[in-house]
Amino acid sequence: MARVYNFCAGPAILPLEVLQEAQADLVDYKGSGMSVMEMSHRGKEYDALHNEAIANVKELMGLGDDYAVLLLQGGASFQFAMLPMNFLGEGQTADYVNAGSWGSAAVKQARLVGNVHIAADCQKDIPTRMPEAGELSWTPGAAYSHVTTNETISGAQMRELPETGSPLVADMSSDILSRPIDYSKCAMIYAGAQKNLGPSGVALVAIRKEFAAKGNIALPTFLRYQTHIDENSLYNTPPCFSIYILCLTTRWLKSFGLQNMFRQNREKAQLIYDAIDASGFYRGTAKQAFRSDMNVTFRLPTEELETLFVKQASEAGMKQLKGHRSVGGIRASIYNAFPVAGVRHLVDFMRDFEQRHG
Amino acid sequence: MARVYNFCAGPAILPLEVLQEAQADLVDYKGSGMSVMEMSHRGKEYDALHNEAIANVKELMGLGDDYAVLLLQGGASFQFAMLPMNFLGEGQTADYVNAGSWGSAAVKQARLVGNVHIAADCQKDIPTRMPEAGELSWTPGAAYSHVTTNETISGAQMRELPETGSPLVADMSSDILSRPIDYSKCAMIYAGAQKNLGPSGVALVAIRKEFAAKGNIALPTFLRYQTHIDENSLYNTPPCFSIYILCLTTRWLKSFGLQNMFRQNREKAQLIYDAIDASGFYRGTAKQAFRSDMNVTFRLPTEELETLFVKQASEAGMKQLKGHRSVGGIRASIYNAFPVAGVRHLVDFMRDFEQRHG
Repeated sequence: MARVYNFCAGPAILPLEVLQEAQADLVDYKGSGMSVMEMSHRGKEYDALHNEAIANVKELMGLGDDYAVLLLQGGASFQFAMLPMNFLGEGQTADYVNAGSWGSAAVKQARLVGNVHIAADCQKDIPTRMPEAGELSWTPGAAYSHVTTNETISGAQMRELPETGSPLVADMSSDILSRPIDYSKCAMIYAGAQKNLGPSGVALVAIRKEFAAKGNIALPTFLRYQTHIDENSLYNTPPCFSIYILCLTTRWLKSFGLQNMFRQNREKAQLIYDAIDASGFYRGTAKQAFRSDMNVTFRLPTEELETLFVKQASEAGMKQLKGHRSVGGIRASIYNAFPVAGVRHLVDFMRDFEQRHG
Repeated sequence: MARVYNFCAGPAILPLEVLQEAQADLVDYKGSGMSVMEMSHRGKEYDALHNEAIANVKELMGLGDDYAVLLLQGGASFQFAMLPMNFLGEGQTADYVNAGSWGSAAVKQARLVGNVHIAADCQKDIPTRMPEAGELSWTPGAAYSHVTTNETISGAQMRELPETGSPLVADMSSDILSRPIDYSKCAMIYAGAQKNLGPSGVALVAIRKEFAAKGNIALPTFLRYQTHIDENSLYNTPPCFSIYILCLTTRWLKSFGLQNMFRQNREKAQLIYDAIDASGFYRGTAKQAFRSDMNVTFRLPTEELETLFVKQASEAGMKQLKGHRSVGGIRASIYNAFPVAGVRHLVDFMRDFEQRHG
């Protein structure tokens, strides 16, 4: 079996150990005579996986019983709507930081529901970046304030969570559990699983119970956070197999340790940023202070060279290095499960490519 | 490997061939060097699976280009809300047939959105049943009319789709593609995949494009059917692995043939109903004309015997025969992938159990 180095921005690479365990148990899970995909979501085998997944996340995030961890469907895109539908009532204002494509997408959906104030807008800035503390303007008494902690497309990351004066909600789809951070500064954190936590098809929501209790009670039952808290994410049939893989992935992450994972993530990113900075050939697209540990974005002197770079890297077993279609360039997404060896392979390739074409 | 006979009502048994193929390709899909779970949802490998899944469903349902087949998340429970949010505007009425727990759940959510007229209510009738044609009262000019074609809990099934005079919407979660039926009588059909089509985590919606175009344009983008039509169910990251399994399952169904599947489903159900009718010991819970081919529900003389039946059946390799907690009794769910041999095994066990305890 020849595994490739998969730099895909999401769905993304999973730990090989997780895939191998899922493969071994795929047809007959632990002697149960059935696949996890075939099990009742109310049976004891699935129940154990479901609750372990939730407990792993809660422990890794360092959250107490004042928070509920939910495993939902529809990804961050659904959260863009569900969040304001629950909390942005008539006559209220929600503050949004718009620092890239995903922040901008969240704003667009919130505006379909209610009144939005942009706390800072730097989504079109080049080099790409996050706002500085001094730029941020918060609405007193806002329903909530929303940030996107890592912009997957532009490769800019928020190092610290801001002080906002209203319940802070963070879209952490592309850097959730890649680092220890004070998650309890947030009233709610959400993330599609398909970057750092597992496969697509499951979204994580960690929400302060007090905050959830303020949600709009007139919504259809499925759309209320309170429903999924009350039912432990079993109001409807959950995406069992995706949650199973999330359970295995968080188990793997726990055994590695979040602090170790963070250190390794920084090292991986730094290897590539060092290669960029040591060259006159590659040019990073994010402002230095906001360079993402998850998505390293850079340009080559010409688009022709970028196309050639992606093609030759692919031939050398490094896949999906092409930048997002909206911005071009090169993007190396190196989430938790991406191996250090793959980063070294890329850096060697970058030096070699520069020698041949620089 | 000892596979059990899994009578679970959903998530439910999958074709063994499908599981074995998924197992073989789990870590390295067809030499791509990655799992289907790790692939970009915009890459060529996943794209082929996504589009084949949609094409398979469309072909099996016999639908033309006036319909769009969508692969969404959130299951039928989300459709209970999304449907009225799109189509039940102020001053309008939607007709709902309430013939069991799922019909009732759909009604409850629609009422949170707008005005509902109950076209017929037989949800509390014992024996369980579907309404007769003469009982149904439809609202002239209704926004739509809604039926649940198979009530999974009570074991009652609608043999024919009614003529309603307004766009017909069918929740076919538990009998979708178990039989050839004129799906084009419906403006919309929806179903969680986890009974006849694949694993949980993906919901099928087949919708007439003309009907979708009438949806509420003020909703958040994710909540509009039109969005998912325009984006070919790629507006947000899809539940890739669940769709992959749905692709393999519908491929398997196509090779078997829908007419053959229907014949086999009828034969399987009839074997159990014959065993019930030949005995004075077992008592079917559904009215004869509405007995479900998917969920065969019956009672034993006492609850103690039912508990013993479930326990001894489990020891004999027949799992999940316990009826839904809300109604008790026995339920044998025998969807498309459930093997004939398992039904024969159950019928033999029923005769033996009756001899021992009758």
